[in-house]
Amino acid sequence: MVDGYNSGYGLGEDPEEDQLREECGVFGIYGPGLDVARLTYYGLYALQHRGQESAGIAVSDGKKIQLQKNMGLVSEVFSEEKLTIFQGHLAIGHVRYSTTATNNLLYAQPFVFHSPKGMLALAHNGNLTNIDEIRSFLYSTGSVFQSTSDSEIIVNLIARHNQNNSVEAIKESMAEIKGAYSILLLNENKLIGIRDPYGIRPLCLGRRGNAYVLASESCALDTVGAEFIRDVEPGEIVVIDESGVTGCKAFQGSRKAHCVFEYIYFARADSIMDGFKVNQIRREMGRQLAREYPVMADIVIPVPDSGIAAARGFAAESGIPFEEGLMKNRYIGRTFIKPSQSIRDLGVRLKLNPIRDVLDGKRVVIVDDSIIRGTTSGKLVKMLRESGVKVVHFCTSSPPVIKPCYYGIDISTEKELIACRKPLKEIREYIGADGLHYLSLEGLLEIFGEAKDNFCTACFSGDYPVEIPQAHAQDKQILE
Amino acid sequence: MVDGYNSGYGLGEDPEEDQLREECGVFGIYGPGLDVARLTYYGLYALQHRGQESAGIAVSDGKKIQLQKNMGLVSEVFSEEKLTIFQGHLAIGHVRYSTTATNNLLYAQPFVFHSPKGMLALAHNGNLTNIDEIRSFLYSTGSVFQSTSDSEIIVNLIARHNQNNSVEAIKESMAEIKGAYSILLLNENKLIGIRDPYGIRPLCLGRRGNAYVLASESCALDTVGAEFIRDVEPGEIVVIDESGVTGCKAFQGSRKAHCVFEYIYFARADSIMDGFKVNQIRREMGRQLAREYPVMADIVIPVPDSGIAAARGFAAESGIPFEEGLMKNRYIGRTFIKPSQSIRDLGVRLKLNPIRDVLDGKRVVIVDDSIIRGTTSGKLVKMLRESGVKVVHFCTSSPPVIKPCYYGIDISTEKELIACRKPLKEIREYIGADGLHYLSLEGLLEIFGEAKDNFCTACFSGDYPVEIPQAHAQDKQILE
Amino acid sequence: MVDGYNSGYGLGEDPEEDQLREECGVFGIYGPGLDVARLTYYGLYALQHRGQESAGIAVSDGKKIQLQKNMGLVSEVFSEEKLTIFQGHLAIGHVRYSTTATNNLLYAQPFVFHSPKGMLALAHNGNLTNIDEIRSFLYSTGSVFQSTSDSEIIVNLIARHNQNNSVEAIKESMAEIKGAYSILLLNENKLIGIRDPYGIRPLCLGRRGNAYVLASESCALDTVGAEFIRDVEPGEIVVIDESGVTGCKAFQGSRKAHCVFEYIYFARADSIMDGFKVNQIRREMGRQLAREYPVMADIVIPVPDSGIAAARGFAAESGIPFEEGLMKNRYIGRTFIKPSQSIRDLGVRLKLNPIRDVLDGKRVVIVDDSIIRGTTSGKLVKMLRESGVKVVHFCTSSPPVIKPCYYGIDISTEKELIACRKPLKEIREYIGADGLHYLSLEGLLEIFGEAKDNFCTACFSGDYPVEIPQAHAQDKQILE
Amino acid sequence: MVDGYNSGYGLGEDPEEDQLREECGVFGIYGPGLDVARLTYYGLYALQHRGQESAGIAVSDGKKIQLQKNMGLVSEVFSEEKLTIFQGHLAIGHVRYSTTATNNLLYAQPFVFHSPKGMLALAHNGNLTNIDEIRSFLYSTGSVFQSTSDSEIIVNLIARHNQNNSVEAIKESMAEIKGAYSILLLNENKLIGIRDPYGIRPLCLGRRGNAYVLASESCALDTVGAEFIRDVEPGEIVVIDESGVTGCKAFQGSRKAHCVFEYIYFARADSIMDGFKVNQIRREMGRQLAREYPVMADIVIPVPDSGIAAARGFAAESGIPFEEGLMKNRYIGRTFIKPSQSIRDLGVRLKLNPIRDVLDGKRVVIVDDSIIRGTTSGKLVKMLRESGVKVVHFCTSSPPVIKPCYYGIDISTEKELIACRKPLKEIREYIGADGLHYLSLEGLLEIFGEAKDNFCTACFSGDYPVEIPQAHAQDKQILE
Repeated sequence: MVDGYNSGYGLGEDPEEDQLREECGVFGIYGPGLDVARLTYYGLYALQHRGQESAGIAVSDGKKIQLQKNMGLVSEVFSEEKLTIFQGHLAIGHVRYSTTATNNLLYAQPFVFHSPKGMLALAHNGNLTNIDEIRSFLYSTGSVFQSTSDSEIIVNLIARHNQNNSVEAIKESMAEIKGAYSILLLNENKLIGIRDPYGIRPLCLGRRGNAYVLASESCALDTVGAEFIRDVEPGEIVVIDESGVTGCKAFQGSRKAHCVFEYIYFARADSIMDGFKVNQIRREMGRQLAREYPVMADIVIPVPDSGIAAARGFAAESGIPFEEGLMKNRYIGRTFIKPSQSIRDLGVRLKLNPIRDVLDGKRVVIVDDSIIRGTTSGKLVKMLRESGVKVVHFCTSSPPVIKPCYYGIDISTEKELIACRKPLKEIREYIGADGLHYLSLEGLLEIFGEAKDNFCTACFSGDYPVEIPQAHAQDKQILE
Repeated sequence: MVDGYNSGYGLGEDPEEDQLREECGVFGIYGPGLDVARLTYYGLYALQHRGQESAGIAVSDGKKIQLQKNMGLVSEVFSEEKLTIFQGHLAIGHVRYSTTATNNLLYAQPFVFHSPKGMLALAHNGNLTNIDEIRSFLYSTGSVFQSTSDSEIIVNLIARHNQNNSVEAIKESMAEIKGAYSILLLNENKLIGIRDPYGIRPLCLGRRGNAYVLASESCALDTVGAEFIRDVEPGEIVVIDESGVTGCKAFQGSRKAHCVFEYIYFARADSIMDGFKVNQIRREMGRQLAREYPVMADIVIPVPDSGIAAARGFAAESGIPFEEGLMKNRYIGRTFIKPSQSIRDLGVRLKLNPIRDVLDGKRVVIVDDSIIRGTTSGKLVKMLRESGVKVVHFCTSSPPVIKPCYYGIDISTEKELIACRKPLKEIREYIGADGLHYLSLEGLLEIFGEAKDNFCTACFSGDYPVEIPQAHAQDKQILE
Repeated sequence: MVDGYNSGYGLGEDPEEDQLREECGVFGIYGPGLDVARLTYYGLYALQHRGQESAGIAVSDGKKIQLQKNMGLVSEVFSEEKLTIFQGHLAIGHVRYSTTATNNLLYAQPFVFHSPKGMLALAHNGNLTNIDEIRSFLYSTGSVFQSTSDSEIIVNLIARHNQNNSVEAIKESMAEIKGAYSILLLNENKLIGIRDPYGIRPLCLGRRGNAYVLASESCALDTVGAEFIRDVEPGEIVVIDESGVTGCKAFQGSRKAHCVFEYIYFARADSIMDGFKVNQIRREMGRQLAREYPVMADIVIPVPDSGIAAARGFAAESGIPFEEGLMKNRYIGRTFIKPSQSIRDLGVRLKLNPIRDVLDGKRVVIVDDSIIRGTTSGKLVKMLRESGVKVVHFCTSSPPVIKPCYYGIDISTEKELIACRKPLKEIREYIGADGLHYLSLEGLLEIFGEAKDNFCTACFSGDYPVEIPQAHAQDKQILE
Repeated sequence: MVDGYNSGYGLGEDPEEDQLREECGVFGIYGPGLDVARLTYYGLYALQHRGQESAGIAVSDGKKIQLQKNMGLVSEVFSEEKLTIFQGHLAIGHVRYSTTATNNLLYAQPFVFHSPKGMLALAHNGNLTNIDEIRSFLYSTGSVFQSTSDSEIIVNLIARHNQNNSVEAIKESMAEIKGAYSILLLNENKLIGIRDPYGIRPLCLGRRGNAYVLASESCALDTVGAEFIRDVEPGEIVVIDESGVTGCKAFQGSRKAHCVFEYIYFARADSIMDGFKVNQIRREMGRQLAREYPVMADIVIPVPDSGIAAARGFAAESGIPFEEGLMKNRYIGRTFIKPSQSIRDLGVRLKLNPIRDVLDGKRVVIVDDSIIRGTTSGKLVKMLRESGVKVVHFCTSSPPVIKPCYYGIDISTEKELIACRKPLKEIREYIGADGLHYLSLEGLLEIFGEAKDNFCTACFSGDYPVEIPQAHAQDKQILE
C-alpha cells in the first residue's frame, strides 16, 4: 500500500490505488482563557492524516455555538480571519475523508443542532452497524434527515432521550447503537467524549494546566502542548466542564477490540494508543516478519512512508542492510493532474522514483504495510525490476486482508480483496515477486504480549467483535 | 536546517527559520508528437523542491509561443483545462521562490518576449553578479524594464546582439554577463540550453526516443521517462531542433565550480549531478562526519528530511544505532496559519514532534545539513532536552557557512551567519549542545575524490570563483 | 428608498440605507424532456431582484433528488459544469437574502430531506408567525434542527403528518402554521405549490407545452418562454405530476390579503400579479400622487430605478416635464468597498450622480417608492440642493410606513420607522424638503378598484390579516 | 445595439451581439494628504462602463511606485486589504476591455517600468496607427517587448528620448506617434496627462482643494467630489506636481477631431465632454431623428439603457408618447451561463423582456443608439412582433456605420458592418422592420452648432483625421 498525502496517483499510474482510508479524526478542548479555536486548528492539523477531505470546528462561548466547516485540508478551510472571529472557551473539531466521488459539504462535521435544551455539536469517528434500524425507528417517530450521515442520526437519537440529565440520554442512546464510535459532543458549557464499548476507534485524554483535551491520537496532544493522561476506556463517557473531568463507565463490552490496523497503518508513528507506542510496534512487526521469513537478500527497502519502521525492524532483525531504494515526491497536491494513459505509457513516474544505483543487481526485500487489491504492489515490483533488481521479496506487516471492515475503515468488498480471491502463490505471481510473505496473525498479536486478545482483527479473521449489518453479512455496505 | 515544503513555521515557533532556498528549477523539452505541456508539468513537479512560490510554462507550436504562469505550486497553477489548450511540440518551464515578502507575479518565469525575429521565452536558474553594470549599459541605450529580474535583462542583452545567428548573439551575451546561470531559451522552433562557464548551477540533458529534455536535475528526466545522457558542460550552449542536438562549448571557465550545496541540501536525493549520485554523497558526508567526530552516543537521529542520508552514513560508520527521534508532520500548506507568540508559549509543536520513548535518557547525535543563523538548531536541542535527552551532539554535513552566496542561493548577509560571527565554542553554547561538529571542508571535498577542485565552496571559504559585485564585496546584495 | 443591486452603499455615504428587502423568490418546473436545471437557473435569474445573497436548485430524475446551493448571485453559484451534471425532469429553485450580517449557508434553500417516503426538497418565500409554537411542539416530540429557518421546521411538521397521502399531510400542516408562505415542494416525482390562505406572498402558474412552471412572479414565466395560466389561489395546493396539474383549495382565508408592497416596490415592473400589471399600477400611483398633491414645479424626477414608473405617472397627470436628474452607476458589486467616513467627507458620490444642468435653478418633484428611516431621503434632498435645485417636493408612492411586517419583508422595528415617530411636518423638516407628500392609503387602494379590499396594508395601517407573534405585538421579532 | 454590463448574452440569444466596446478609461490624482489609492478606486468605478475586463492602479509615495492590477471589475480586483497597503500621494488607474477571447493579464494596465531616471507608470486610452513603424524602429535599436500593447511601446519610445527634461522626451515621442491617445504618466513625484493633437479620446482636468484630478470623463470628477476645471486640450501636456498644474500645448493638430461616438454611446450620460453635456446631446439626437423621420406611431420606446435619452427626445419632438416597452434584467454577471441553442429555441428571454400590455396592437418607434451587424436589431424587431406590435419603426441616433475605427473603438471590419454591405432597404428587410431611419450625419453634426467640424466621424464617412495603418487601408487590423 502506498500511503500518503492525497495520493491516488502514486506511481504515476493508477488513480485507484490500494490506499486504505480512515474515516475521521476528532479533537476537543475545554480551556477557559485559551484561544480554543486556534488550538483546535493545530490539533486537527496533527490529525490531518486521518482525513483530508473536509475539516470543521465548532466553538462555544458558554452561550452559543458557532460552526465553520468546509471541504479541504485544515489549512485550506480556515484562515486567520476565520479563526479570529471564533471566540469561546470550549471547542470540538473534525477531519474526514469522503467516500463519495463528489465533494459533499452535507457530510462535513461537526454537525450543530438546535435542541430544546440549547445548541449541540457533534463530531464522530467510526461507523455504526445498526444504522438502518435506528433510522427506521426515528422515521417512525417523524424524524427527517438532511444527510445519511451516522452523526446526524446519533444526535436525533440522543434528542429523543429527552431527560434533563444529558449523560443519561447518552447512556440510553449508547444502549441502542451498535458499532464503532469515538464521539465528541459539545453543548454550550460541556465537552463530552464517548467511546464505544469495545474501544474500536481510539480516543485519549490530555491536560494542559487546567485545560483538558480529547483527541483521536496522542500526537494531537503533543502538538498543542498537552500532557497525555490516559485513553478513554471502552464504553466510557467523559464529561468535562467547569467542575473538571468526570469519567463514567457506561457500558462494558464483552472484550476490548481496538482496531489493530491503527498500529499497522493509520495512526501517526509518534502516537501512543491504548498503551502501545505505534512506532515501536511497527518496528516489532518488521522484526517479526524477519523471523517468520528468513531470506537471503542484499538490501531491505521500505515503501515510503508507511513501510519505513517495519523495514527498519526487518533490517535490524535480519542483519540485511536497510536502504532507501524508492524516493518519494512530497509535493502532490489535491488538484494535481493525473497522467493520462498516453502519458503513463511514456513511463512517467510521479510519486516514487527508484534509485537505480541502490537497486541495480540487488536481491531486495521490500516492506509495505499491507496489500489490498494488489495492483500497486504489482507496479512496485515492476518498477524494481526495471531498475535492475534481480530478486524481489515482498513482505507486508499485516496478515492477508480477507474481510471488509464495518467499523470505519474503507476496506473494500471481498471481491476486491486479492487475498480473499487468490491463494498466496497466485498473489505472488500476480504481483510478480519472487517471494511474498504476510506477517502471520499470531505473529502480529504476539507483539502485544498479554494484551493480544484486546484487538479487532476482523479484516484478517472475519471475527467481528460487534454484530455487523444483516444485509451485509456477505458483502459490504456501500456507504452514503 | 529544517527543510521542507513551505515551512517557515517549522517547530511551530519561528517563521524566520534557517531554511536555505534555491532560486529556481528549469525544465525544457523538444518532443514532436508528444504532449510537451503536460510532460513539462510533470517535469516541474519533480523539481518542485527547487521553488514553490511560482510556476510557469511556455509552449511553442512552431508558429507562436503561449505562456501560462502564476504564483503557487505547479499543481495549483495548472489545471487540466489549462494544459489541454496548450498545444505545441517544444516547451520550457520554471519553478521559483520569491525573495520578497509579497508575492509578485512580475518575477514569475518564463518570460516571453516579442523580438524582431519572433517570440522568445526564457527560464533562468542562477544569479548574475554584474547585473548593475549590464543594466546601466542597457539603460544607456534606451531600455526600460518591467522588473528588476536578471532574466528580463538577459533577454534584452541577447536582443541587442542582433545578428541573424542567434547562437552568436548568445555567445556575445555570455561574454558580457558574469555569475551563475543555467538558462533555457525557447523560440518558435528551437530549444536552447546554456550553462555558465563555471557550471555553478546544474543542467543536464536526457532523451526519450527522438525527444530531448533539459532539466536542472536528473530526477526530472526519470519522472518523464527520459534517459540521462549527460550534464551540459560549463560554458556550453546546447541547441535542440528538428536536426537534433548540437552542443557548442562557447566559453571555458578557468575551472569548474559546481555548487557543492546542491549535494549537501538542494538537489533531490535521487538525482545524479555532474557525475555524482546525490544520495550516495550525502551518505558519505555522514560517514566522514563520523570519522572526524568520534563520539560516545546511544543513537544517531536525523533532522528530517534533509539530514536522513547523512545520519544514516554516520550510524553506519560509527556503529551507533540510527533512530527516528523526530516525527515530521507533512501537511503544512502554504496558507497554514502560523502560531502567535501566545500560542507558541503554550509549547505548540507543529512541524516536528520528538518521540520521547526513543529519546528519553539517551546520548544523541543529531545530524542536520547545515547551520545558518543557529536559531533553529537551538530550538531542536531544546526540544531534545525536554524529551529527556541527556547528551546532545549536533553534527552538520556542511562546513561552517561564513560567506554569502552571490550565485543563486539565498544565503544571508554575513551578520546573520552565526559561523561568521562566533567561534565554534560560542555557537555550541548558543545552541545549547554538548558537542558540535561541522564537517571539515577538506573532508567534504575528499568525498569527490579527483574531482575535488571542481566545486564552488565560496560560502565556506570566501573563495568566489566568479567576480562578485563591487558594492557587495562586504555585504550581500539585497535582491529584487 | 434607493433600490437596487446589493447597494447598501448607495449615495456613497451610508451603508445602512433605507432599502427594503424581500425574503425570497421561488421557481419550480415539471418538464419531462427539458433541461429543467438550466430552465430553473434562468427562472431564478429573472427573480434575482427578490434575493441576492444565496441561490439553490434541487433536481429530481424520478429516483433521487440532487441539490446545489451556495451564497451569491445565481450566476455566481452555478457554473456550466454544475448545471450539466444536474439531470432530471423536475426541479425547484430559490433565491434569498440573509438578514444576518455574516453569510450563512445553513439558511440557503432549497432544503432537502431524507424521509421514510423518500427525498423531499422545499423552497419557501414568506414568514411564519407562530414558528415558536410549532418549534416547541416539534421539540417536545424529539426533533432537533440544524438551523432556525422556518423552512426546516415546516418540513419536519409535514413529516409528522405521516399519512400515505402527502397532500393530506400538507393540509394538516397548513392547519397548524400561520403567516405568509408560498412554498414549493419537490419529491422524486411531484412538484407541489402551496400558497397561504390569505395569499400574502405571490405565486403563479404557467405552462410551456406539456411542462408546467410555478414561480413567484410572471416575469420568470416569460423568461423561460412559458405562458401565464393563473395565480395560485390563496389557500390552494397545486400538485403537478405525470397526470398533469391538480389544484385543491385546502383553506379559505377570511379574505385575500396580497402584499401591496409587491406593487409599490418589490415585484419586477413587467410582472403581472394577482390580476394587476405592476408597471401600470406604479404609473397609476404616480398619477394619483399628482392628483393628491397639485404643485407648481419645473420638473419631475425619479429616484432611479424604483421611482421611475411613478414619476412618469406623476408627470403625465400633472403636465410637469419628466427628467432624469440623477444618474445611477450600475456597476456596484457585492464586494464593492464602501467609502470610509473620511472619504465620504470628501463628497464621494458612488451610486447616484445629480445632473446639474437638468437640476440647476429648478423647482423639482422627486418621486421615490417609500420612506423608511428617512436617512436616504435626506441625503437625496441635500444632493439636489447642492446641484442648485431651488424647491424640492418629495413624493412617495407608498403611504407612511408605521408598522413592522411579520410576513416576509424586512421592515424594521417601529422605532426605526420615521413615520411612526414623527408627524409629517417634522419628517419634511428632517429630510429638508420644501414639500412632502405620501400617497394616501385610500388613494393607493382605489387604484385596484373593486379588488381594493384584497390587500395587506398592515405596514401602513397596523391591520394585520394574520395573527402576529405574541411576543412581538409591540416590536418586531429579530429574525434568525 | 444593446448596451450594458458585460452582456454578450443580451436577448438571451446571441453571445456575439452588436455591442461596441471602448478600449479604456483612465483616472489620475495628485493629492498630498489624501488616500489617493481609494479615490482612484472610486474614480475607476465611475469609469467602469469604459472597460470591464481588467483594472489596475499604480501609486507613488514620492519614492517608489507600487502596482496592483488584475482581470475583472474594479470591485473584483481590489479588496479593502489591498487598498490599505497602497500608500502614497499620487496615483493613476486604468480600466480596459480585452479584445482577445482569453483573458490576458499581460495587457492589463497601468504598466510600470524601471528606467534610469526611476520608475514610471503609464495608462493609456486610445490606439496608435503607426505602431508597426515605431515597433520596427525600436526593434532596430534592440528593444524587445513582453506584449504587443501600444502602451509598452510608448514607454520604450519615451525612454529612448533620454533627456533630463522628461516633458521634452514626451514631446519628441509625440512627434513620432500617430493616432488617438489620452495617456496618464506617473513617476515618483509627477502626474502627467497627454492628449493627442486631434483630441480624439477625451481627457479632462478637475480640482478638489489643492488636489488635482485627470480623468477620461467628468463623471469621475463628480464621483470623487472634484470640480471640473477644463478639458485637456488636443496636443496638450499637463504636468501636475508640487508646484501645481502646468499645461503646455505641445502639438496642434490640423483640426480637432473628438470621437463623436462618445456622445452617441460610450460616455456616461452625466459627463460633460469637450463642452457638451452628453445627456443633452443624446436628447437632441432624438429630437433631430423625429424631425428627420416624421412618422405615425402610437408609442416611442427605447432600447434600454443606451436608447433612453434619444427616445425621450424623439417623443418630446414628435409628441408621440414615450413608453418603456422592454424591461431589462440588471443582474447578468460576468460568469452568467449563456443559453444553449436548444434552450434558446424555447424562447428563453434573459436580458430584455417585452411588456406585452404596453406593446400589444401598437405602432411603435423603437430607438437605439446604433446598428452594427444588424443581428441584435433583427431580434428586437422579432421580439416586438411576438408581443403584438403592429408596426415597427427602427431609429438609430447614429448614422450608418460603414468604416472601421482605428482610434480605440472596437468597430469591426467592413465586412461585418451591415451598413457597409447593404443598402438601407435591404437592412430594413434584414431586421424585419416596417421603417428604418438612421440619423443623418448632417443632422448629427448640427446638434453641435459651431463646433460641428470638431469631431471625428470616420466610422460614418471614412474621413479619417489621422493617417491609418497602410496595411489596413482596406480592412481593420486584428488587434493583439
